[in-house]
Amino acid sequence: MPGRRARADRARQVADVLRHQIHAGAYADGLPAEQDLAAEFFVSRNTVREALAVLKNEGLIDRGPRVGTHVAVRKYDHGLDALAGLKETFKGYGEVRNEVRAAMRLAAPPAVARRLQLPPGAQVVFVERLRYLGDLPLSLDLTYLTPDIGEQVLEHRLENNDVFALIEQVSGQRLGAATLALEAVSADPHSAATLQVPDGAALLMLERLASLDDGRPVDLEYIRMRGDRITMRGNLIRSDS
Amino acid sequence: MPGRRARADRARQVADVLRHQIHAGAYADGLPAEQDLAAEFFVSRNTVREALAVLKNEGLIDRGPRVGTHVAVRKYDHGLDALAGLKETFKGYGEVRNEVRAAMRLAAPPAVARRLQLPPGAQVVFVERLRYLGDLPLSLDLTYLTPDIGEQVLEHRLENNDVFALIEQVSGQRLGAATLALEAVSADPHSAATLQVPDGAALLMLERLASLDDGRPVDLEYIRMRGDRITMRGNLIRSDS
Repeated sequence: MPGRRARADRARQVADVLRHQIHAGAYADGLPAEQDLAAEFFVSRNTVREALAVLKNEGLIDRGPRVGTHVAVRKYDHGLDALAGLKETFKGYGEVRNEVRAAMRLAAPPAVARRLQLPPGAQVVFVERLRYLGDLPLSLDLTYLTPDIGEQVLEHRLENNDVFALIEQVSGQRLGAATLALEAVSADPHSAATLQVPDGAALLMLERLASLDDGRPVDLEYIRMRGDRITMRGNLIRSDS
Repeated sequence: MPGRRARADRARQVADVLRHQIHAGAYADGLPAEQDLAAEFFVSRNTVREALAVLKNEGLIDRGPRVGTHVAVRKYDHGLDALAGLKETFKGYGEVRNEVRAAMRLAAPPAVARRLQLPPGAQVVFVERLRYLGDLPLSLDLTYLTPDIGEQVLEHRLENNDVFALIEQVSGQRLGAATLALEAVSADPHSAATLQVPDGAALLMLERLASLDDGRPVDLEYIRMRGDRITMRGNLIRSDS
């Protein structure tokens, strides 16, 4: 059995457990003093300090010589279990509003046309929105819609409606299912500036193809979420094997 | 309708579609020439160049004056739909082996004890593994196991078995379900060095609490996955509302 561990390894261990507690709201009034955390985790104060440095590096906490250690950002939960728009998801947190950066028809690149089961060169509707919770930019969403749905969606207010809700409204159908891919990427300078995060900050990149109840794909989205603000949560079941 | 868009916005649009095609294996022999991509996406060559710079910045492609544009890394799919270990997940890709960095008993910090439904100060088994696919480090996994399960797991070879498989073997029960949280975080220097990525690289951070079929939580994991190597994929269903 490997025995003695480097301090950086023990610090990571402490940081991970603290990260969870911070998200769970355990330290709304500030984190405990270093010596108390040291006692709680059975580690040295130096290890606690290094663990707090990891979390500070992630932007999760602030530390100051007089003010102690405070939670710097609040993170918001986004469901991995059900298909829902951001406004719908965050209705308990506050008002979601969208800055519409583009809303236009364009000729679909072949790869987009293929995924939306459209002929090559078909026109699609493209919408780009910077999405805010209150004054805080949370995500930058690039959306391609099939023309029949997209043309009708464009007739509605995109500033304060989820595209999912509008699709269901104009199609008279429920959305059925979606396939999704989730990645962690470093923000390129322009995306970073748009989302108001440092250059190279970690983003959750979500690609999602949503279909109507009848199985027809109508909505292809590329969503950059601020890694320091959003946690995706869900449940998994063990499949039979 | 907002009309004319900045080149950086159009470049991001192109980069997102290309990223998907790269992951789908469309460009195993290299990406098309700039002018061909420009025609495909109905944009200028300058926009294509900027899109490729975004993907290069993510480490996804290499570019050279003579050699053209090539896919630099292969990404591996990890399922979001079913609870499965890494070895089980990647059996089609190659051999998963684990460098066991720690395997020890320790007194559980209160937050860990609580989540595993153990009394405060209970002993748990802690395992830390750096997980490789072939020679490539993919993830760094920190695992806390309840003592009854953990003690038996320690009697088995951790180098080439999934902990999930060992839990099922020693408990005689199937794993039932898990709750999970997914975040994008920047790698701290020590984690970056361990995973062989640049300082501050984007990591997918997965926290997962897995329970046996009878509902008892037995396995709490904190998993840092290389963002440039792993994509989480799954399906969502629209819930009734």
